[in-house]
Amino acid sequence: MEKRAKGRTLLSYAPDIKVVDCTLRDGGLVNDFYFADDFVKELYKANIKAGVDYMEFGYKASKELFDVNKFGKWKFCDDKDIRSVVGDNKTDMKIAVMADVGRCDFKKDILSKKDSPIDLIRVATYINTIPSAIEMIEDCTKKGYETTVNIMAISKSNETDVDAALELLGQSSVGTIYLVDSYGSLYPEQARRLADKYLETAVKYGKKVGIHAHNNQQLAFANTAEVVIMGVSYLDATVSGLGRGCGNCPSELLLGYLKNPKYSVHPILKFIEKHIVPLRESGVVWGYDVPYLLTGILNQHPKTAIQFMKEKRTDYNDFYLELLDNF
Amino acid sequence: MEKRAKGRTLLSYAPDIKVVDCTLRDGGLVNDFYFADDFVKELYKANIKAGVDYMEFGYKASKELFDVNKFGKWKFCDDKDIRSVVGDNKTDMKIAVMADVGRCDFKKDILSKKDSPIDLIRVATYINTIPSAIEMIEDCTKKGYETTVNIMAISKSNETDVDAALELLGQSSVGTIYLVDSYGSLYPEQARRLADKYLETAVKYGKKVGIHAHNNQQLAFANTAEVVIMGVSYLDATVSGLGRGCGNCPSELLLGYLKNPKYSVHPILKFIEKHIVPLRESGVVWGYDVPYLLTGILNQHPKTAIQFMKEKRTDYNDFYLELLDNF
Repeated sequence: MEKRAKGRTLLSYAPDIKVVDCTLRDGGLVNDFYFADDFVKELYKANIKAGVDYMEFGYKASKELFDVNKFGKWKFCDDKDIRSVVGDNKTDMKIAVMADVGRCDFKKDILSKKDSPIDLIRVATYINTIPSAIEMIEDCTKKGYETTVNIMAISKSNETDVDAALELLGQSSVGTIYLVDSYGSLYPEQARRLADKYLETAVKYGKKVGIHAHNNQQLAFANTAEVVIMGVSYLDATVSGLGRGCGNCPSELLLGYLKNPKYSVHPILKFIEKHIVPLRESGVVWGYDVPYLLTGILNQHPKTAIQFMKEKRTDYNDFYLELLDNF
Repeated sequence: MEKRAKGRTLLSYAPDIKVVDCTLRDGGLVNDFYFADDFVKELYKANIKAGVDYMEFGYKASKELFDVNKFGKWKFCDDKDIRSVVGDNKTDMKIAVMADVGRCDFKKDILSKKDSPIDLIRVATYINTIPSAIEMIEDCTKKGYETTVNIMAISKSNETDVDAALELLGQSSVGTIYLVDSYGSLYPEQARRLADKYLETAVKYGKKVGIHAHNNQQLAFANTAEVVIMGVSYLDATVSGLGRGCGNCPSELLLGYLKNPKYSVHPILKFIEKHIVPLRESGVVWGYDVPYLLTGILNQHPKTAIQFMKEKRTDYNDFYLELLDNF
């Protein structure tokens, strides 16, 4: 059984912490995964130098369901494309991909670990597809991978269902269960309450807990920092918060906060200067703004806010009234 | 003795909470207090409609020390200028100004309350000028004003000095003692520890505690929300976080969070659309950015970061190395 790391403080040395860079995967939702090869290679190098523990390259999306001509290659993460960046990845950083329940031909597209540069399969599921998630988890475990599971949109689920899902996942072979704030609606008080629940199952079944936060209410970093103290150990972040809509917990905030000497913010600062500044200048838009706050407050999917931003609307109050109408 | 409101939750109705709008005062540090009259009048109306409890108009700065030709009128907040906006202010919202120790001719410039539209004098002091702050507080109390005190830069002070300062202020006539995160360096864990200390003195002497947070690490709202639960009741915010450097706790986040039915975010959303969007388009720059994060992490004054932004530099890592050299 895992020892629960309760009572960590700001200066605690916490070797169980793992920083997971999701820049390409969550960021790919902003630019349909069309990243320049140079961006990907330099991010890989920067993450290694920064002490990042896992780098997520993108999705293992089904080519039956999604048109390969409409997305960049990191939507599909062919092993050969990953290898073209990482070679045999003879580094301390592990390679991750995300596999969505119902959107991934995992039996065919996820090879045996011994033939793949990937270390970790991150299964993403809604609460009503947990049995399918577990099927994927067991398949990936058998193939030799580490696994994590993201239960998405739990802020819309009732606590009884969350409890049941955690119990099922506890009994599976998954290594880490993620607390996911899909809509950026959780206040620190709520994030702590949920982390407590997740950690309870984790301790019982010898699992780890992770957090994946969104920045709708400028709380992605705050919520991450808060649950670290409680013993949550897999921490998702993206460089400059690059990610859908309001984006994610920024790597530079997280690495500036963590006290483990293995982490360094310097390589990330250099990467921002050389690759994120030009990305913004090229017109890619993400990050906190009023419409994302409003969907966050109302615990709604950010798609309406993303549309509002695309249309360059600024009638925030009218937008809020529209959201309230559909509440 | 005050009852300590420990154990508040997200849905608690907390009638002791007071929202203090500092948009003109902290925002004036960005544009040297040159706000259009229309901006000020509309902000006053929006705050009233939003249920804001106090609106801070600016500083009562000394005209001996500062050249009136180099700043807009809200650096000085002549009573006649406030009256030109608020008339006799026959509303439920009170009027505040800030008076800096050593930069305010308070004996001359702060009139008797009965002759002034101002309700609250906010005394700002460093920890080494507490006796001067108390002289100002007592003068203002005698003149009939409510008073609060901001102890600035406490993240650079040792805890023994903070304890001594709180004790002295506890024995003064001040109504509210502010926990101020001048450099945006406090993590929620630290903000809670300090709030606990401030609340202890407040309970002992029958005072209230306030919080004034900066957004260097995207924690201004998070820290504010965290200490509200503990019983901190005076909450500073600015519309869209307008304020020096990285800015402040955004009013729209705070009003979206507070559950007291007296508050409404709608008037603030309308104000953002009509007045903040054009202000940004006019070239006024504020808000979270990497250089502010770096001064925040290092618990330093943001002036170097402000200069970095003015020069439109993006060599973040070199800047961080410069800051570390001067640490």
